[in-house]
Amino acid sequence: MTLRIALDAMGGELGPEEMVAGAIQAVGESELHVLLIGDENILSRVMQKHAQLPAGLQIVHASQVVSMDESPFEAIRKKKDSSISKAFAYVKKGEADAVVSAGNSGATMASAIKSLGRLENISRPGIASVFPTLKKPLVMMDVGANVDCRPQHLFQFGVMGAAFSGNLFRIKKPSIGLLSIGEEGGKGNVLVKSAHELFRKSSLNFIGNVEGRDIFQGDVDVIVCDGFVGNVCLKVSEGLAEAIISMLRTEMSKSVTAKMGYMLARKAFHQFGKRVDYAEYGGAPLLGVNGTGIVCHGRSNAKAIKNAIKVAGEMIRSRVNAHITELLSEFDARDTLENETDAAEAVQSGEGS
Amino acid sequence: MTLRIALDAMGGELGPEEMVAGAIQAVGESELHVLLIGDENILSRVMQKHAQLPAGLQIVHASQVVSMDESPFEAIRKKKDSSISKAFAYVKKGEADAVVSAGNSGATMASAIKSLGRLENISRPGIASVFPTLKKPLVMMDVGANVDCRPQHLFQFGVMGAAFSGNLFRIKKPSIGLLSIGEEGGKGNVLVKSAHELFRKSSLNFIGNVEGRDIFQGDVDVIVCDGFVGNVCLKVSEGLAEAIISMLRTEMSKSVTAKMGYMLARKAFHQFGKRVDYAEYGGAPLLGVNGTGIVCHGRSNAKAIKNAIKVAGEMIRSRVNAHITELLSEFDARDTLENETDAAEAVQSGEGS
Repeated sequence: MTLRIALDAMGGELGPEEMVAGAIQAVGESELHVLLIGDENILSRVMQKHAQLPAGLQIVHASQVVSMDESPFEAIRKKKDSSISKAFAYVKKGEADAVVSAGNSGATMASAIKSLGRLENISRPGIASVFPTLKKPLVMMDVGANVDCRPQHLFQFGVMGAAFSGNLFRIKKPSIGLLSIGEEGGKGNVLVKSAHELFRKSSLNFIGNVEGRDIFQGDVDVIVCDGFVGNVCLKVSEGLAEAIISMLRTEMSKSVTAKMGYMLARKAFHQFGKRVDYAEYGGAPLLGVNGTGIVCHGRSNAKAIKNAIKVAGEMIRSRVNAHITELLSEFDARDTLENETDAAEAVQSGEGS
Repeated sequence: MTLRIALDAMGGELGPEEMVAGAIQAVGESELHVLLIGDENILSRVMQKHAQLPAGLQIVHASQVVSMDESPFEAIRKKKDSSISKAFAYVKKGEADAVVSAGNSGATMASAIKSLGRLENISRPGIASVFPTLKKPLVMMDVGANVDCRPQHLFQFGVMGAAFSGNLFRIKKPSIGLLSIGEEGGKGNVLVKSAHELFRKSSLNFIGNVEGRDIFQGDVDVIVCDGFVGNVCLKVSEGLAEAIISMLRTEMSKSVTAKMGYMLARKAFHQFGKRVDYAEYGGAPLLGVNGTGIVCHGRSNAKAIKNAIKVAGEMIRSRVNAHITELLSEFDARDTLENETDAAEAVQSGEGS
């Protein structure tokens, strides 16, 4: 069966050109079909610039766009015909199989929960992110959807992250680390110490607490944290990587010899750039919703969109959601304090982009 | 008056050799005197290896050592003659003016609070850290002492960070940013949203929320966060910087041209290394205790210790504590929920090293 990915073609900071280019590349390189959701005038004009269009691309008109700084909840309530809402509506009525968006990530999450609902026994869907490391890729969850968490939420992030990592990277029992500020179980804040106990008592492959410096070593498959800490980590990493490269460039332009050195080593810099390029990993999956969605970096280029579309296809094929439900059913991980408005609140207080 | 710095000469992972070497350099380059606190047999043996000893160095015997992984509270209670306890005892009885330690940072904080007490109206002393950025140095607080905070604690960290930054870097009204996951005041977790209101209503130079990627831009003087988030940021930054350098080295050793490039650019790499070297900044001050203490990185070398000793002297001379008390008196920043055991609990649950 051909899988159909609904792409929010109006999302992202680089405009519909990159979205369309990414969709064309993805369709050209795979068996996937892509629905380009957005303003049909704009999208057909962009498509006309491409000499050859592969089969398997289709425009679906949506008259509204959610901007990056809009309040997720209000945007979803008011803009019923936004590209992001329509993308999930298509999944709901069975005319698409997954959504990819580089737009407002809070609105994407809110829209996913509203249209598709949550997986059984999941209190808080969240956003996972794939980090490049010195060895294998690392899945970190949550990176921004749930800023105030209870221990059970962290436990569920671990289950979801393990199911995703296991299916996508074909790891039998992914190792899970809990992000804290010391390796011993007694180290950390109240939330982390309670979550540590839940993980320790479970049959998951829990390796204990890990620290910030372990993220890039690549010795663990999944790192669990609340969405506030995860989002800070993500942005600290981005900011530092950019700052380091910028400092090195400055130092290397100060003398003629160093400049020559840079010219000779340029390819190495380029290869290094590829290793840390988020575009290689194709966005961050929404986990815990009853369907498949991927949020991409706001600055996603065509390559990032192409990879996100492919990962969406891979997530459906490898049945990540079935694996999450199955893995979760082994534990009594339900949060007894949970109530219906909870997930909604989380999205509302989370970040918008 | 000659200032006397009590150095925990047994702390740190590199051993007393680096501590003694750092003390010798500091005394040689400044008017400061240093008390080397630790095992007198070991310390005099180490000192004998140095051909020329400047005046102003004195060994004070302490028979015990707190190790890096000991529980701070227990260690302080049980090891009454540890080098770290004795260092603060010397400050308490007026025979030293400040403490520098590269040992167990939790024990250093606990010992400081126990011996010297807290500054007036400070609920939770904390650890500030100086980050290198693309522009000017940044003060971040708290980076590990207080893992579960209330909004008033964050507000007090802002006041303490501003007093430190203002006095040390001679900035009239340092700008303060609150670490969150979006720039708008409504973004963040419950703690950060309440703290935002406290800052907004104050007359501090509060620039609003900042994000993880802003840390290295150097556009803000002080960034405030709880000790859990701050410690994670610190370790993520260390880990990523090491990983990036290691990845670049690997890429540069893959081809002969790239290797030649590295040889030519080596000086630039070295200069860059100096820019991000924590040793240049000489450790992290304990702020909020009624005295002066600096915790250094466990891996501190002689240079880091030398700089920490000098910063300790500078902190006393520039009267940072008086400035904190003065600045705090302008606000009603007391935490009404506060109680006496609070600071103790914070240290106990915080990290040990």
